[in-house]
Amino acid sequence: MKHAATFSAATAGSGGTVGLVPTMGFLHEGHLSLLERARAECDTVVMSLFVNPLQFDREDDLRRYPRDLERDLRLAAAAGADVVFAPEVETMYPEPPLTRVAVATLADHFEGPHRPGHFDGVATVVAKLFAGLRPDRAYFGRKDAQQLAVVRRMASDLSFPLEVVGAPIVREADGLALSSRNVFLDERQRAAALALNRGLASAADAAEAGECRAARLVELVTAALAQELQLDTEYVALASQDTVEPLEKLDRPAFLALAAWAGPTRLIDNVHLDASGDGFAADRGIRLDHPSVLYEGG
Amino acid sequence: MKHAATFSAATAGSGGTVGLVPTMGFLHEGHLSLLERARAECDTVVMSLFVNPLQFDREDDLRRYPRDLERDLRLAAAAGADVVFAPEVETMYPEPPLTRVAVATLADHFEGPHRPGHFDGVATVVAKLFAGLRPDRAYFGRKDAQQLAVVRRMASDLSFPLEVVGAPIVREADGLALSSRNVFLDERQRAAALALNRGLASAADAAEAGECRAARLVELVTAALAQELQLDTEYVALASQDTVEPLEKLDRPAFLALAAWAGPTRLIDNVHLDASGDGFAADRGIRLDHPSVLYEGG
Repeated sequence: MKHAATFSAATAGSGGTVGLVPTMGFLHEGHLSLLERARAECDTVVMSLFVNPLQFDREDDLRRYPRDLERDLRLAAAAGADVVFAPEVETMYPEPPLTRVAVATLADHFEGPHRPGHFDGVATVVAKLFAGLRPDRAYFGRKDAQQLAVVRRMASDLSFPLEVVGAPIVREADGLALSSRNVFLDERQRAAALALNRGLASAADAAEAGECRAARLVELVTAALAQELQLDTEYVALASQDTVEPLEKLDRPAFLALAAWAGPTRLIDNVHLDASGDGFAADRGIRLDHPSVLYEGG
Repeated sequence: MKHAATFSAATAGSGGTVGLVPTMGFLHEGHLSLLERARAECDTVVMSLFVNPLQFDREDDLRRYPRDLERDLRLAAAAGADVVFAPEVETMYPEPPLTRVAVATLADHFEGPHRPGHFDGVATVVAKLFAGLRPDRAYFGRKDAQQLAVVRRMASDLSFPLEVVGAPIVREADGLALSSRNVFLDERQRAAALALNRGLASAADAAEAGECRAARLVELVTAALAQELQLDTEYVALASQDTVEPLEKLDRPAFLALAAWAGPTRLIDNVHLDASGDGFAADRGIRLDHPSVLYEGG
C-alpha cells in the first residue's frame, strides 16, 4: 500500500477503474465496509484521509477530532486499500482557498442551519478530491445522509464522470451507529445514545407497517430520545432523499434523521426508507457482532 | 473532426494530452489562435462551444449573442480541432443547476460589480468543462483578463490537474480587439471604438518608459476615450494580474483594463504589463493583416 501526501503521488501509476473512499480518518468498520466494497468493485482503491478545516463550524470540534495516522494506515491496508492519500493542510490549501463549491437548497434544512458553512466545506473538498484524484466511483456512508445528497448533486451538476455509491450504516453490536466521535462518550452517555437507534428502529417498523405520516414517525423517535436525560435532541425529521426537503408524508425515497447531543458530543443517525412494492422498506444498517476497532488499544 | 453533443461522446477515444479551448462560438481569430496553439502543444484538441446562460447578467445580451454553428464547425476544423463539443442547454443543465462555484474577492472589482453573477457562472461552467472533459491544458485569451485570473484560481484551488494557458489578445488590423460582439457595431461606433486600443497603447508606451503611477496610466486611457462622443466609459483601472485587486502603483504583473459602451454594445479591452528587467513590458497583442473572419459572409 502506498502512502501519498500529494495528488500527483496519489494518482501516479493507478490503473483501471479507481474507487475513492474519502474519510477524515480514525477509521471504524463503517469506513472499512466502504473500502471492502471498493476493493470488490474497482481495480485501484484510494482512501483519502484529511480532517478538512473548511467543513468544521466549531473550532473546538476541529481541534479535538480524533487522529491516529499509524492506526489508520494499518487498518486501510488490511481492508485492501492500494493508496492512502493523507495530505497536510498546507498541501490541500497552500493559499487560503478563495473558491467555494455550494449546493443551494440542499443545505437549507437539518444539518445545514446547525452547522453554518459545513456543506460548502464538504462540497468544496469533495470536488477537489474528485478533480485531483479522478475516481470512477466514490463511496460514502448513508450515516451522513444529507452529505450524500449534497455530494451526489454536486457531482451531477458539475458533470464529474463518476458514480457516487451510498452504503448502509454500520452499527455497533448494540445498535449505536459507528462514528469516530463515539470514543468521546462516557459510560452513561454511551448507554443513553442507544435511544437513537431504538427510536429510529421503531419508526422503521411503523413505516414498513404502512405508517406514512411524518409527524407520527418523528414522534416515535422523539419519544425514545425523551426517555434519556443525558440526551438533548436537536432535530428529528423526515426528508426527501434527493432534495433534502422536509416531508409531511412518506411518499418517495426518504430518510428519517436526527441529531442529538450527549454531553459535549453531537451524534447523528438516520434510517433510509426506500419504495418497495406498495410500501416502504427500511435500511436499518449492518450490525457488528464484535467490538468495534474504535475501542482497540493503540 | 468529431461534432459531439454530450460529455461522453466528446471524450470517447481521445488519447494523449488533451487541450481544451472553451468558447461561446461565433469564432474569430482570437479563438482560432487558441486552437492553433492547442494544436501545436496537444495530442487531442477539443473546442467547447456553449453560450452559457449562467454567466449572462442581462437577458437581452444572452438573446442577441451571435450564433452560427455551421460556420463555427467549419472554422474549428480548419484550425485543427479534433472535437467540437457543442451541447444543448438541456444537456448541460438537465435540471436547474443547484451547484455554484464561486471565487471570492477576484470578482469584487471591475467586471464583477457591473455583471452580477457573471464570474460565478463562468467559474461554474468552466469547472464543469474541466470535470467532464478532463483536459491537460486549457486555453483562454487575455482579453478577458479577469476571467483568466478567476479560472486560474478556481483550477488551482480545486486541484484540477491541468495547466491554464493565457494567450495574447488578437486585434483587427486597425487595433480593435476581436470580439464576437464587434459585429453589432455600426460604422460610427466602430470608428469610435478605436480609441480603446489607442488609449491603452499610449498607456503601454508610458508604462514601458517607466511610468508606474496607476492614476497617470488610467488618465492616458480616459483621455483617449473622452475624445469619442460615441463611447460611454464604464471603468478604466490598473489591476493585479493574480488577485485582480486595484493597484495604485505598477509594482507587479498587472493589467490595465477598461469597459466602455458603444451604443448598446459593451466592449472591454486591456493591456497586460509584465515585469521585464528593471521595468515592465506591455503585451499589446497580435494584429491581423487582413479582415477578420467575423465579417465574412455566411
